[in-house]
Order: sequence, then structure tokens, then C-alpha cells
Amino acid sequence: MNLLERRTRAMGPVYELFYDDPVHLVRGEGIWLYDADGCKYLDCYNNVASVGHCHPDVVAALAGQAATLNTNTRYLYENVIELSEKIASKMPGNLSVCMFVCTGTEANDLATRIARAVTGNYGMLVSEYGYHGNSTLVYALSTADSDERPDWLSVFEPPCLYRPAFNGGDPVESYIGSVRDAIAGLDQKGYKPAGIMIDSIFDSQGTIVVPDGYFREVYGMVRDGGGLVIADEVQAGYCRTGDYWWGFEHDGVVPDIVTLGKPMGDGHPLAAVVTTPEIAGIIADRLTYFNTFGGNPVSAAVGKAVIDVIDRENILENVTSVGAFTKQELQKLGDKYEAIGDVRGRGLFLSVDLVSDPAAKTPDADAAHRMVNMMKDEGVLISTHGRHGNVLKIRPPMVFSRDNADQLLAALDGCLGRL
Amino acid sequence: MNLLERRTRAMGPVYELFYDDPVHLVRGEGIWLYDADGCKYLDCYNNVASVGHCHPDVVAALAGQAATLNTNTRYLYENVIELSEKIASKMPGNLSVCMFVCTGTEANDLATRIARAVTGNYGMLVSEYGYHGNSTLVYALSTADSDERPDWLSVFEPPCLYRPAFNGGDPVESYIGSVRDAIAGLDQKGYKPAGIMIDSIFDSQGTIVVPDGYFREVYGMVRDGGGLVIADEVQAGYCRTGDYWWGFEHDGVVPDIVTLGKPMGDGHPLAAVVTTPEIAGIIADRLTYFNTFGGNPVSAAVGKAVIDVIDRENILENVTSVGAFTKQELQKLGDKYEAIGDVRGRGLFLSVDLVSDPAAKTPDADAAHRMVNMMKDEGVLISTHGRHGNVLKIRPPMVFSRDNADQLLAALDGCLGRL
Repeated sequence: MNLLERRTRAMGPVYELFYDDPVHLVRGEGIWLYDADGCKYLDCYNNVASVGHCHPDVVAALAGQAATLNTNTRYLYENVIELSEKIASKMPGNLSVCMFVCTGTEANDLATRIARAVTGNYGMLVSEYGYHGNSTLVYALSTADSDERPDWLSVFEPPCLYRPAFNGGDPVESYIGSVRDAIAGLDQKGYKPAGIMIDSIFDSQGTIVVPDGYFREVYGMVRDGGGLVIADEVQAGYCRTGDYWWGFEHDGVVPDIVTLGKPMGDGHPLAAVVTTPEIAGIIADRLTYFNTFGGNPVSAAVGKAVIDVIDRENILENVTSVGAFTKQELQKLGDKYEAIGDVRGRGLFLSVDLVSDPAAKTPDADAAHRMVNMMKDEGVLISTHGRHGNVLKIRPPMVFSRDNADQLLAALDGCLGRL
Repeated sequence: MNLLERRTRAMGPVYELFYDDPVHLVRGEGIWLYDADGCKYLDCYNNVASVGHCHPDVVAALAGQAATLNTNTRYLYENVIELSEKIASKMPGNLSVCMFVCTGTEANDLATRIARAVTGNYGMLVSEYGYHGNSTLVYALSTADSDERPDWLSVFEPPCLYRPAFNGGDPVESYIGSVRDAIAGLDQKGYKPAGIMIDSIFDSQGTIVVPDGYFREVYGMVRDGGGLVIADEVQAGYCRTGDYWWGFEHDGVVPDIVTLGKPMGDGHPLAAVVTTPEIAGIIADRLTYFNTFGGNPVSAAVGKAVIDVIDRENILENVTSVGAFTKQELQKLGDKYEAIGDVRGRGLFLSVDLVSDPAAKTPDADAAHRMVNMMKDEGVLISTHGRHGNVLKIRPPMVFSRDNADQLLAALDGCLGRL
């Protein structure tokens, strides 16, 4: 029995794999992944390995703490407090209180519980074709995957300017109106908003850089309606979008609750909910919460090491400069190839929207699928996303260099030429 | 600012701490924990450190894999398959398919999603004063903490024989009748059972060893009603109750879904849902699921190492023999001290029910609170549980030896004498 057959027998058919011919990985180092045949891949996809695969400082912190003490937050120990203080030091406003969990799903589920407990409201607002996680609650918020639309949920259109969802009128006004309608829709169903959950980079929608002022308008409307703003920074946070630590900062706003996940532990299961002392004080009397593994000393040591690496290696600056260069070069490929309808994103979260008809902006999912597999054969790992499955997703570990960008761009150029 | 003040500022007031004078831990090794003042504690409480704090083989597996590769299940790699196969080899029946998550909460949430997807039913059955986790859904199943009783939830009495919930009649029949009533109650509200979630050792209820045949009856009734049986083995599993790997095996039953958590990673965030190939096949078409961190290579390496240590160090045999000895000696203390109303449990999951009036079996939460703090001052860590908060909870790492038991018992004897 080969590995794939053993896998299906042992883990069932729900588990999916990337690529038509899946990659059997055996080693990772920095920006590189290696397969069982000794092939070397430039990783242009994995944001979880945020500071590079198997970063030695992160591994040392993990191994050192695991050999010393691993317990839970019902005992006192220092490094979970230090991690919380480090995260707070990167946050704007008074977002200074951290609660630790293990996954982005747990963070978004807890954030919703907090929003409901604080406001006394039950309604939630999310964007169409969004993804926030996989618990029963959060799956219902994940409109890209879930067909269920519970009464307490109201959905608005994400502000995509390349393919406007509304005909005529000012598109930005239409999108802001869509949020206004969603709040009104909740009211019609007898719910008031507990909050909005909003991915600052709209990953699953194929990356959207929101128009200036969009978040300011939306945050204001939700608050006027009595709800809290939950910024889902599982994708956009931790310097990923360049210039700032957090995606929402590009629009100069401060959420009430921020959820963190994937990049926090460079692969280790670590996630968090960050909020204000005021909200933390209100919920103290209204909900109980304990997470066995959340904020354990080993996870905390890893979390601290990741932030230290980001600071020491000037990773935010790298994301900003290499991201800007890569986007500019992708736009040049867009001038060269008609298949590229749009290039979107910020920092090292970049997307290439493939179309079969540039004028009609017809999504070309088949081209995207072929490109991803061709790129893999060229030794470069990317993937697809977006509601039409036609968008190339480029989101490498943040140690991605100019040389790495050159290799990615050359491979894209070659594959687009043969598409 | 001292550590406690810093902690409250950084993590908010929701986080609780054990003991009136919290323990500031700095190191763990085997059965021992050490605080910042150099005090050494016999750990008689932490089941998460299942094979002992900082077990060198587990730390080596963690550190070695973290330095080699950490990625997700959308790539092929061997050790997540090997972990799944190892778990399957410990399961009875055809419970051979594993899905990996990071916490018991995630496991119980996913198990509920699976039960609903497979049966097409929405109702859930849980015991009174149970605990299964903290996501929005699973918190509603956690009747010990949640006041919410959604329409789709029906609650039965846990089969405590020491303090029967029903007057007159055969208590076992009454308890089985309580499950029958719960199923009927769902029907009256227009729901059919998707499943029952049942902790095989009833941890939060103060430990209940079910009467012979109880699980067989209950499992049968739920299945007759169209639901699946989810055995929550986060507490009872992994050899904890002695004689068998899984708590439900004491009654010779085989659930449809088993959820695993706390002890799986000796502290590392690792949990799983185990089910049959038939159920895994059905859900493949009915739900999508991906967990970024669930089953990553590092977590899988840790999970494999824990099972290997259990096998190599004959930990199941240790739990069985030292557990039986400890329970017998606790019963002798019960003969000596009127404050002990009952001694319950199996293996190294043991509970001492403290009462102020032995005849009336009046729960004495104050005595339990004082005992836990006195024991801590004697260098022995235990805690309390149960719906009245009066039960001493003794649940050490499974490397607990006869000598360790002697120390525990001497400390209990001394503290009970001074109570």
C-alpha cells in the first residue's frame, strides 16, 4: 500500500491534498521545502511558517521550554505574561489584554462569545464568501464553505472593485450600503448586532485591499448599531501586509477585538484574542473560559521567539520592500499577459486574478489550476483562492527575499508563456 | 508591579488560578513540579502531563521534528499517518479513522458536526453538570458551566449511586430511565437525536464509575433513537482508568465516535476524533473540514512518542496496579475519617467525596477547599471537582509510583487529621 492509500485508510476521505500530484514533504528550512525525492521547492504559499520553516531561534525556544516546564494558565509562570505584553506593544489604541487559544477557529469562536456577552446582542455580520474557521459556530460565519444561513447571521458584499457586485452608482458607496443593509436585515429578523467579523485582507475572496475609509465607515456603522468590531487578523496580521503589524492599520482604525492565529507560532498551534481592558472587565462577570493548552509555557515561549525574530531580522521592513517590488513586477507581467486580469494585495499577500476574457473579466479557474501545478513542477509552491477559484495566491514565509521574488517571477513568466 | 498584577493587566480578570496562594512554577520533571522559591511538589493532579512532565523522549521527538519539518495535512508526510495507525491499533471494533485537531473542544465540536451530518438529526444528549469544552456549541453541551439550554439539547442525570438523583425504585433503572426521558424530551421539542456525548468517567460530576451494563443500555437506546454515540475520552482515555486504554471498554461497548485530547501530547496541543470507515465515508460528501494545525508533523511526532512511551514503560500496567493500591488505601482513610463520605474512581482517576454529615452525605465544599490548600503546603498538588465542589480530585501523571502514592496518602492522612 502506498502512502496515499495508507493515508486515506487512516484518516478518511475528508482530508484534501494540494496539487494533482501531491507533494510528499520531508524537510523545511527558511523559504525552502524539500520532498522525498530530493526536489527543492521555493515556498511562496505558507504563511504559517511566518519567519521561515524551522527557524532555529523558534525551534530552540520550543525545545528549551518543552524540556523545562509545560503546564497551564491556572499556575503562575512568566512567559505567557511576557508574550501578552509583547503583543500589546504591537497593538494600537488600548488593545492590551490577550486571551490565548490554539487555533484561529478557537479565537474567532471566543471573540463571538465575547461580543455577544458584552453587547447582550446575538446577531453577527460577515462578508459573502468569507472564511473564519471550522467550529460549528465559526463555520456558520464562513460563508465560503457553509450553505447554512442562520437567522442571526447577516451577510454583506466584500468591497471588490475589480468585479463590482452592484451595477451603477459609486461602487464604494454601494459596498458601504451593503453593510448598512445587512444591519437592517438583522433588525428585520429581530436581532441586534453583537458584532461584525471582518478579515482585513479578505483572503478567501481572492484578496481585497479595501478603498480608503471603508473600514472607518463600516466600523462606525456597526458601533452605531450597538455591535463590536472583530478584526480577523489570522491572515492579515503579524506584518503580512507590510507597513504595519496589522491589516486594519492601513485604514487608521482600531477594532474592539482582534483575533490572531496562523503566523503566531511559526507552525506551532498558537492563537489569541486581543481586546481592551474595558471589554475584559465586562466579560469577567459574564463568561467563564479556560483553555487547557491555550497559553501554555511552551506555546508562549514560541510566541515570544517569533516576535523577537520579526523585530531582530527587520521582517516588517522586508515584507514592505520585497512585497512592493513583487507586486510591481507582477503588474508588469499583467501588462505582458492577457490572462492576468488584475493584481491585488499588499506586502507579501499578493494575488493574481486570471481571466479568459480581459474585457469581460471572465474568471479562468482552469488556467489557475494549471498554473499552480505547472509552478509546482518548476519548483515553486503557490495555490489558488477566490470565490471563482481563479486567483493565484502568493503568500510566502516573510523572509522572502528579492532573489526569491526573482525566482518566483521568472517561473510565473515561463508558465504564463506556456499556459 | 508583581507577577500577579502584571498577569491581570496583560490577560484580564477571566483567567483563574489554583490555590489561595497561587503556585509560581518554573520547572517540571516526571512526577515533580518546582516553584520559583525552590519548593518541590508531588503532582497528583495534572493528567495533561500524561507520561510525566517534560518526558525526555517526547521532548526529543518534538525538538527533532520541529527542526526538520512543520507543515499541514494538505501535503503528504508520514508521521501523521503513523500516529493515526497507532491510535487505531489501540481501539476496539473498527474505530480506525482519525481526524486531528488541537484541543478537546475542537474534537467535541467536530464530533457533533459529524453526528449531525451523518444522521441528519440536530438534537444532542448530554449529562447534567458535564463539561466538554468551550466553543459556542460545546459550551452549550457543558451543563456544568452553561445556563443556556437550547431547544436541541436534552439533559439526563449522571448515574451517581452515592447520592441518587431519584427517590425510590432501582437507582440504575431510574438513571437509564433518565436517558430515555431525555430522548423523549427531544422528540417533544421536535428534534431527533444526532447523538449523545458522554464522558466515560464523568469527571466534572466528581467521578462516576458507571454500574455494569449502563453504557450498553444507554448506547443501545441512543442508537435505537437514530443517534450516534460520542464517547468523550478526553479525560478517561489513554490508559487513565486502568485495565484498558479507553474508559468505555470497562463496560464492553464500542462507540461510533471517540474524542481524544489532553493526555495525547504530554502537554502539546493535540487532540483527535476517531471514527469508523463507514462514518468517515458518509461525511466525505457532507462536510468540508480543514484544521491548519491539526495533525501537523510536529504534533504527530509528539503523539507517536507518547504512545511509544506508554507501551515501552508499561504505563497501562502501572496505572492499573498503583491505581488499585491507591484506591484501596484511600478507602482505609475513609474508614478512619468521617469527613470521607465516598471514594470513587478507577486507575489513576480517583476522587474523595468530603462530607460534613456522613449519614446525610452533606457535601463539604469548605473542607475540600481547605484540604487542597493544606495539601499544597505539604508539597502535594490536588484539586477539587464535582457539582458541589466538595470532591478531592486525584489524577496524577501516569508514571505515579507506589512511593508517590505513599507520599500522597501520608499527606492526606496528616491534613485530614488537622482538618
